[in-house]
Amino acid sequence: MNETEPVPEGFVRVEDTGPFMTLLGPLYYRSAGNGRIIALRIGGRHLNRRGIAHGGMLATLADSALSVNISLSRKPRLPTVTVTLTTDFVASARAGDWVEAHVDILKIGSRLAYANCYLQVGAKRILRASGVFAVTRAPRPDQASDG
Amino acid sequence: MNETEPVPEGFVRVEDTGPFMTLLGPLYYRSAGNGRIIALRIGGRHLNRRGIAHGGMLATLADSALSVNISLSRKPRLPTVTVTLTTDFVASARAGDWVEAHVDILKIGSRLAYANCYLQVGAKRILRASGVFAVTRAPRPDQASDG
Amino acid sequence: MNETEPVPEGFVRVEDTGPFMTLLGPLYYRSAGNGRIIALRIGGRHLNRRGIAHGGMLATLADSALSVNISLSRKPRLPTVTVTLTTDFVASARAGDWVEAHVDILKIGSRLAYANCYLQVGAKRILRASGVFAVTRAPRPDQASDG
Amino acid sequence: MNETEPVPEGFVRVEDTGPFMTLLGPLYYRSAGNGRIIALRIGGRHLNRRGIAHGGMLATLADSALSVNISLSRKPRLPTVTVTLTTDFVASARAGDWVEAHVDILKIGSRLAYANCYLQVGAKRILRASGVFAVTRAPRPDQASDG
Repeated sequence: MNETEPVPEGFVRVEDTGPFMTLLGPLYYRSAGNGRIIALRIGGRHLNRRGIAHGGMLATLADSALSVNISLSRKPRLPTVTVTLTTDFVASARAGDWVEAHVDILKIGSRLAYANCYLQVGAKRILRASGVFAVTRAPRPDQASDG
Repeated sequence: MNETEPVPEGFVRVEDTGPFMTLLGPLYYRSAGNGRIIALRIGGRHLNRRGIAHGGMLATLADSALSVNISLSRKPRLPTVTVTLTTDFVASARAGDWVEAHVDILKIGSRLAYANCYLQVGAKRILRASGVFAVTRAPRPDQASDG
Repeated sequence: MNETEPVPEGFVRVEDTGPFMTLLGPLYYRSAGNGRIIALRIGGRHLNRRGIAHGGMLATLADSALSVNISLSRKPRLPTVTVTLTTDFVASARAGDWVEAHVDILKIGSRLAYANCYLQVGAKRILRASGVFAVTRAPRPDQASDG
Repeated sequence: MNETEPVPEGFVRVEDTGPFMTLLGPLYYRSAGNGRIIALRIGGRHLNRRGIAHGGMLATLADSALSVNISLSRKPRLPTVTVTLTTDFVASARAGDWVEAHVDILKIGSRLAYANCYLQVGAKRILRASGVFAVTRAPRPDQASDG
């Protein structure tokens, strides 16, 4: 496998991800239930000195996937900031791996939102992450969704 | 402040950080006690869509600083992998901010190592992170230190 | 509901839980797949000054359920100690609530084991917890299971 | 050492801790800076089947110490609930050990409060814990402090 192989069917590129995710991406997504699976092909630039995906890269993917899914759970989008993120590194990812983030939202409250996430390579779970997010303001009814 | 301003006195560039930290860096360090303060100047490429440093960038800096300090605590360097990383986001960082990671090692065991870390902008703590790392093999006595 | 109401069908009392869980219990379990759902009826003694179940009580239930399920995943029982436990408090539990811990094991390695857990009152998830556990020794083949 | 030995000089008993901490305690405290060191003598009732303090007991002590110190940081007391608690188990505690919780508050915001904590037996740190707490309401100016 290499970085240029085509993305799996059903995935489309995430646009407008901000500078940091543009630097690391591209990210892809596929709708799944009420949310989105977020995915990325691990490339050489994502590796640490040991030749596996840097833990920070995987944590970033998890944080983004959690945040996007919570944001998209409301119309218009719910603006949030990360309060806490915990990550357990279960197995490693290598160059060429297609890593998918599967998010499970536990609660969207008026002030806090909770979700859990698994990063998977195929059916294998390589990272568990959970996040608590603060809702930064009530979305205005007249605000157009940018989702 | 901007990204090209000189690094604070006493800091030198970290070389040979691997592809992912090369993409995000440069990183700088300064010796402090038995360990190292690891630092980075936040630039435009580190920001999210809200114009503040991406949480994944800060988590990556914390993970690297924890890992480096644990590794350097033994001669030759102790090889480790991240088992778990928890991060609490206390305040945000902006473009131009000089962010320092201050690490406190709790324990280096034969199989597991524990450390806590604060990211600071000046005296202000903006993130708390803690990590547990697995020692991946006993370093060989004849192995030259690459620290 | 009150503390003396019968336990739900299919649950039996956990015996030999050690002094601390005896102080807090009784605990109950029901087989589910390859593991066990661990449960407890919240009583007045489990409450904090605000009249809801103390966070430490819920964290203890999660830790016990994670540990028991990892231990029982091998024959003979796998001896482990908790390395790290993270808990997100999603909703509260009250006196009379029957709280069940549903555990999902991610990996049982030779040195470390990973699992995630939800505490539920009915179908409502009130706490998410994850743990990393160190396998403390290889079980001896001749050791009788005490599971 | 045993459970009946006198508490260290300067510590006084915490009163009115609620049912759960009454079941587990008594707790003791000593003023330290703007906060309080919270402490407990480990007794036989706090042990697990392996003969060391149950992880849930130590997590409960950390949660209580974090919560009390955040609450007492404002006059009148700041009412909070635990949002997330992370605990790293660095070493074990045994019957007779005097375990002290030393809390470091990172931030008290209008909606969220952050703190880190070490449990110590003498100078030895046996557990690191961090918590994020939600401020549940603005204290009323006319409300008498119960601190």
